[in-house]
This record gives sequence, C-alpha cells and structure tokens, in this order.
Amino acid sequence: MDNNVIKIFAPATVANIACGFDVFGLCLDNVGDEMIVKKTKKKGIHITKIVGQDLPLDSNKNVAGVAALALLAETEIDFGFEIEIYKNIKPGSGIGSSAASAAGAVFAINELLNKPFNTLELTKFAMQGEKVAGGTAHADNVAPALFGGFTLVRETNPLDVIALPSPKDLFVVILHPQVTVKTSESRAILPKEIPLTLATKQWANTGALVSALYTENYDLLSKSLVDHIVTPYRKQLIPHYEEIEAIALANKALGFGISGSGPAMFALAKGKVNALKIKNAISLAFDKTTIPYNCFISEINTTGIKIL
Amino acid sequence: MDNNVIKIFAPATVANIACGFDVFGLCLDNVGDEMIVKKTKKKGIHITKIVGQDLPLDSNKNVAGVAALALLAETEIDFGFEIEIYKNIKPGSGIGSSAASAAGAVFAINELLNKPFNTLELTKFAMQGEKVAGGTAHADNVAPALFGGFTLVRETNPLDVIALPSPKDLFVVILHPQVTVKTSESRAILPKEIPLTLATKQWANTGALVSALYTENYDLLSKSLVDHIVTPYRKQLIPHYEEIEAIALANKALGFGISGSGPAMFALAKGKVNALKIKNAISLAFDKTTIPYNCFISEINTTGIKIL
Repeated sequence: MDNNVIKIFAPATVANIACGFDVFGLCLDNVGDEMIVKKTKKKGIHITKIVGQDLPLDSNKNVAGVAALALLAETEIDFGFEIEIYKNIKPGSGIGSSAASAAGAVFAINELLNKPFNTLELTKFAMQGEKVAGGTAHADNVAPALFGGFTLVRETNPLDVIALPSPKDLFVVILHPQVTVKTSESRAILPKEIPLTLATKQWANTGALVSALYTENYDLLSKSLVDHIVTPYRKQLIPHYEEIEAIALANKALGFGISGSGPAMFALAKGKVNALKIKNAISLAFDKTTIPYNCFISEINTTGIKIL
Repeated sequence: MDNNVIKIFAPATVANIACGFDVFGLCLDNVGDEMIVKKTKKKGIHITKIVGQDLPLDSNKNVAGVAALALLAETEIDFGFEIEIYKNIKPGSGIGSSAASAAGAVFAINELLNKPFNTLELTKFAMQGEKVAGGTAHADNVAPALFGGFTLVRETNPLDVIALPSPKDLFVVILHPQVTVKTSESRAILPKEIPLTLATKQWANTGALVSALYTENYDLLSKSLVDHIVTPYRKQLIPHYEEIEAIALANKALGFGISGSGPAMFALAKGKVNALKIKNAISLAFDKTTIPYNCFISEINTTGIKIL
C-alpha cells in the first residue's frame, strides 16, 4: 500500500440505545461512508470531493475538515491532507452521519502519520467535528465509530470512554423513515428536570445492560432495553413509532428505540433469522405509509473503522 | 448437624454505593448478627429471644418475624419455628440491621425446609420484613445479604436482582457515628425532580461501575464512585461528612459515600493495607469530635449468609 494514501470505511452508529441517553453507543457493520485521504505537500486540510450528499467543501465548515484540523493542531507537520468523501449515510438520519465523517478523517490521517494518537485522542478530535454538526462536542457516535462494538461515554470533560463487549450473536435492525427531525428540536422537547423515581429506574437499567453485555445474557439485555426518560418525549417526533415498536417486539426484538435523536429507529435481535424477520415485518408495515424509508440489518462491528 | 436447628451469621450490608441510589448494594464479611432457628411442633413463628437490642418479640412487628411469616404463607407445613436473634448490628446504623434479621430468618427456615425456595424468592420474603422497618419493601440490603457480593436491584416489581462480580482485593471501611438519622427524614430531604444533565452523569457512572466490577478495573471503579444526586442532599444529615470524606480520599480511598441513608459512611479501598490506613486516619479525625462511633474494615462477603 502507498504510504501516502489510504482508503477507509467509516461506519454508521447508533447512539443512546434505549436506557443510555447521551452515554451508550454501538457500531454498525455494513453501512457507512468511504473516504480516501492523501498526504499532500500543500499544508492544511483540503476536501476535494464529496459524492452522494450536498455538504460544504470548506474545511472549517465540514465536520471531517474540522475534526482533521483539530488533529493537525496537535502536530507540527509541514505538509497537509486531501480528503475525498463518499457519503452513503444520509445526514440527519440519526445513525451518525457526521460522526462517520469526523471519525473517518482523524482515523485516516492518524494512520498516514504512523499512529501518533490513541483512540481516545482521536475521539476528542472527532468530537470537534461533531460540534460543527450538532452544536455540542458529544462523543455518543464518534466513540463507537472509532472503538467499535458497544461504548459507554462516562464523561466528556475530561473524556472517558469505556469499550464494552458485544454478545456474538447480536444483530441490529435499522428503519430510517426519510423525514427531517432536527436535533435542536429533539433536544428542546426534553424536560430539564425529571422525576427521581424514573431516573432511578433508568440507572438500574444502564447498570443491568452493561452486566448483560459482559455475560451475554440476552434475557437481561432485553429487560434492560427500556427508556423511561427520553423516548416518551421524542417518539412523538418519529412517524409511526409506537406501531413499528409493537411489530418489532411481537417479532422477537430484544428491544426497540430511537437511534440517536432519530428519525431512524433500531431494534436489537438475537441471531440473523430474527433480525430478518423483524426487518420484513416492520418494512411491510412501513410500506403502507406514504413515507419513503430504508430498512436494513447489521451485525455489531467490533473493530470500528476499517482500512480498505 | 441436627436437622431441626440451624445457627447462622447474617451479615451487614451497604446500600446505594455512591452512584447507585436505590439500586446497588454490597455484602460485608465480618460484621453481622447471629441467629438460631429451631423447628417446632407449634405452628407459626415465635421469636423467643433477642439479645443486644431492644426489639419487639411479636412476630408481626419484628422484621425477622414478618419475613418468616411471608415465607410460611407460601408453604403448607403443619409445624413452626422458634427464632433467637443475637444482634450485633445496631438498628438505624445504615448498614442493613433490619435486612440482616429479615434475610437471616428466611434463609435459615429455607435451609430447615430443605431449600424449597431460591435466592430471589427468599429476597421477596425478606423484603416484606423491610416493609415493617422502613415503610417500603426495598431490596437494596436484603439482596446483597442473601446473594453476597455486589448486587444490582434492577426492578422491585417484579423483583429482578443481578449478582455482580467483586474484585478480589476490594475492602470496605465503615465509620458509624452513633447519631440518629431517620430514614423518613433522609427520604424527605431528597428532591422529587432532578436535572436531566445530572441524571445522565449518574447513569453513565452506574454503567461504568458495573464495567469496573467485571474487569477489576480499580481506576474506573474509583472514577465511577461519584453521586451527583443524593449525597449532596443527605450529607448535611451526617456529622463531619465532608471532613471524613476528604481524609479518606487523601488516604487512597477509591470512593466514599453514605451507607444506605446513613449515618454510617463507607470507603472502598484496594487492599487491606490501604483499608487500615483509611480506618486509622478517619478514626483519628473522629476522635476529636464528641460523637461516639464505630469504625471497622471488611472484605467483600461473596457468599452472603453463612451457616455456623
């Protein structure tokens, strides 16, 4: 491989995962962007091509550019990088489109520099990209994109990410209704204060979910995939949420929820057969609406970004 | 051993454990009550002796009696049991005095009946005893007393208890100032609503604590032993809380908090040497107050109630 150019796959991700609002995330395996990053004599970050979406080429306005510049600011190199982005993840889908670009850019540049930074440091750089996209430097999507598997963002300042194990036979079903849900609106709809009794149930479930991942206990995983806090508000913004949830659960979904702030919804399933059954059942239901959508299944991607 | 009589050790327990309000608990090893339970021809539950504390002998008013009667109600036996209780745990200390009696009674009777009930069922019976003591049928203390180790009460109705692993070298330091903190007051002082931002930090830490237990990661254990919700309110009811906390942390405590609703405080430490150092330092500080206290260290008791 040419040491001056790298091609990578930057995966989509699911943040929150029911009980883990602003904390949990997981990495998808077969849906994501591709990026080509080249070392150049010209200093700085230059985004030369974006295919598939209409996004800014200006490095200071593009999430990949901002993340890459954050990394560059911590180096003393006298050269630069060109970035080509081939978007397969739709911005605003709720499965970490901006995170894939931000994480992909810093991962690729780190490889071309012979890995001066560790994964936690890359996550910090990528978070700067997220700031451009969402207004806050959150790590819910960039952490699973970079670490792979399940992640728990314990704290953002200073950043502390815990890589959690993934049960081997776990599949994710994603249904993405092609409607616009603004992240700002899905934030604004949340209450500033929540009942202590419900919060207690929530942290019981976050602890239980972590235990279920370590022990590959699918029953416990299923019981803990409940969100008492955020979904009751946000689901009103997601078309046909309750109907699709009911169908997924009736078809053996271990749990169901909003992916990030939506509009994508996710179900977790034990095994590919169950995942396909859920996909078929919820697709059939969504066919009856007038809303265009994508629906697909994925294994958990335990390694994150891949070099192609 | 005579099949008609059993002598047991019923351990003290620590509930909440910083970030896990109403959810986490752990079992202590060397402090607890002793109980002798005898099969009798006379039906029902008869508490014949209580040594060490002034507690009601009436089975319907004593936590051990109520728990035992809850168990008996699920059997069809035509005999009964006599219970002698030797209290070493002071009621109102915050280290699960009532839980030890309730859990001990149902454990002992279950043994004498050749174990018709599993540990989860025993926990449910013991919770009925807790109802007499505290007004609510909570499981934070009876669960660790019966399961041993660390426990997570995911849900009380229907009851769901997760037994968590314990890092091998973990010690607990308990300081019990002999003052009265009413559970009702320590409940009343808590806000009914809490900020979503703080709740999010809390469930990040509960998840992280569970991960730390599975991976024996003492650094992560230490970072996650933070309570953003309950301790800030309750510590005002605990004499010299902040001073003792600072001394414990300065002496390498992994974390510090209120045991249950207090007044006992606990520190976690890696290794016996650190635990003794913390015990000595906080004892020295508490000697300067006029408040009588007990201070002791304990390993984690991974098996719970023991047959003597």
